[in-house]
Amino acid sequence: MEKFEITILGCGAALPTPHHFCSSQVVNIREKLFMIDCAEGVQTQLRRSRLHFNRINNIFISHLHGDHCLGLIGLISTFALLGRTATLDIWGPAPLIDVFQPQISFFCNNLTYKVNLHEIDTKSREVIYEDRTVTVETIPLKHRMPCCGFLFREKKLMRHIRRDVINAYNIPTCYINNIKAGMDYTLPDGEVIPNESMTTPADPVRSYAYCSDTMFKPSNAEQLTDVTLLYHESTFMEKDKVLSKKTYHSTTVEAAEMAKLANAGQLMIGHFSARYEDENLLLEECRHVFPDTILANENLKISI
Amino acid sequence: MEKFEITILGCGAALPTPHHFCSSQVVNIREKLFMIDCAEGVQTQLRRSRLHFNRINNIFISHLHGDHCLGLIGLISTFALLGRTATLDIWGPAPLIDVFQPQISFFCNNLTYKVNLHEIDTKSREVIYEDRTVTVETIPLKHRMPCCGFLFREKKLMRHIRRDVINAYNIPTCYINNIKAGMDYTLPDGEVIPNESMTTPADPVRSYAYCSDTMFKPSNAEQLTDVTLLYHESTFMEKDKVLSKKTYHSTTVEAAEMAKLANAGQLMIGHFSARYEDENLLLEECRHVFPDTILANENLKISI
Repeated sequence: MEKFEITILGCGAALPTPHHFCSSQVVNIREKLFMIDCAEGVQTQLRRSRLHFNRINNIFISHLHGDHCLGLIGLISTFALLGRTATLDIWGPAPLIDVFQPQISFFCNNLTYKVNLHEIDTKSREVIYEDRTVTVETIPLKHRMPCCGFLFREKKLMRHIRRDVINAYNIPTCYINNIKAGMDYTLPDGEVIPNESMTTPADPVRSYAYCSDTMFKPSNAEQLTDVTLLYHESTFMEKDKVLSKKTYHSTTVEAAEMAKLANAGQLMIGHFSARYEDENLLLEECRHVFPDTILANENLKISI
Repeated sequence: MEKFEITILGCGAALPTPHHFCSSQVVNIREKLFMIDCAEGVQTQLRRSRLHFNRINNIFISHLHGDHCLGLIGLISTFALLGRTATLDIWGPAPLIDVFQPQISFFCNNLTYKVNLHEIDTKSREVIYEDRTVTVETIPLKHRMPCCGFLFREKKLMRHIRRDVINAYNIPTCYINNIKAGMDYTLPDGEVIPNESMTTPADPVRSYAYCSDTMFKPSNAEQLTDVTLLYHESTFMEKDKVLSKKTYHSTTVEAAEMAKLANAGQLMIGHFSARYEDENLLLEECRHVFPDTILANENLKISI
């Protein structure tokens, strides 16, 4: 299977602690790196991860709370010091441009590459990025300020060629892509070789959803249906539900409910409040509702 | 001796690396904490240092390059999350206010305490802070943008009381402070007890100078005369002098020359370029000129 790997650079809420950096992740899809959120300390964490800085061409910012974006200016500046030439696209809710363009102009005034800031609508589902293999959709979230998640979805994959059959019928190379796409092949004598005998099924399409920060928003389940891995914030335990509501965050059980409603393959919880010493208690609460749950943690890499 | 301790939180140049954070230090003078520069990652380093965040009431920013101030907004925000109520004074060259006030307004909009931004003149020597025990003076530096260092100088200390003599003459407590300050004491019978017999000399006045970032600026030697500890940037080795001049930095030998000219007690070098794998080579170059030189390093605490 082609690479589809998530690296957690930080998964703590609000402020860096001895246990957690603030929110940042990298999604590696076939060696293209997509960053989600960009908290302070992200450069240190990127180095630890051994990911290649320069393969990050797109950064998706969920919202403009400091614990999700204060690493941005340092990273942009470091890219320049490392001689970057490729354009960097940064996506986030308004006022992304008003907040960051003046800082880029001031702190990164000798950039060796172009930075494009794109403001996104956090109220609607929209494909904001697309290439040959993946789309990135916004997921409308509900937080104290405009905020959205991101859904990375592989495009429909090609069927696998059965080389033995292709060779047996002596089918010319120029037909291979059409056959991978599902077409039958007609031999010079008129005999039709059905696609199923020349190919095996494509790998299942995989997807990854990042939902942080947000209150429980069950109406998102439809968009997230059958997502392979759901990262959902779980800032609080169930006993702190009142505080959770007040601060527009989710509890363990709500994150797990969301995974259940969406029929997710797996749930990863994160954005942990610093008040909990033992995060296994959060994990247990989730697993009662949605057994296949794991805890995010710094430097965790997970392939889907 | 009362506490006068410097903690290095970061001493690398330009960008964080696996070896160094960028520039930040804390000067602890009798449990009052003064921060100098405030780079990204400063919170993580503060926690490692076990210094009390909340005792920092003054932050001195040398200049507005990102590697000296990009940790500021995160720190201000974290102070609020930790329930700070004490006013925080931040000092730095213009356009400190234009650059940081909008960020404070946006990212730290629910502050539980007051932040005062003070713009300082980097061209002149000026006492910008003073309390009962210490003054902080600006040191005009020469860099690619307005930049100044900071000279922390203990005020003249009091002489130490000889308790045995005070008791022998039965001198009332209300005279003690005057005697510490140097006054003689006249007994009821008219006999004068000279101050020297009631006291021992005050501890020598100590001072700490932070000079980063800067080209070699020998004219600063007079201001720095007899400084107890001089922190001087030494971004480059002598072989990279051309690059050093071009980027308005100092070499090892220049830092050491500065210590020699100022008759410093000790030299600590820092702001190391990431290009050098073995910083002991920088240390050796300095020691040829000024033997009592040490390397800054993360988490180093040095008492003077």
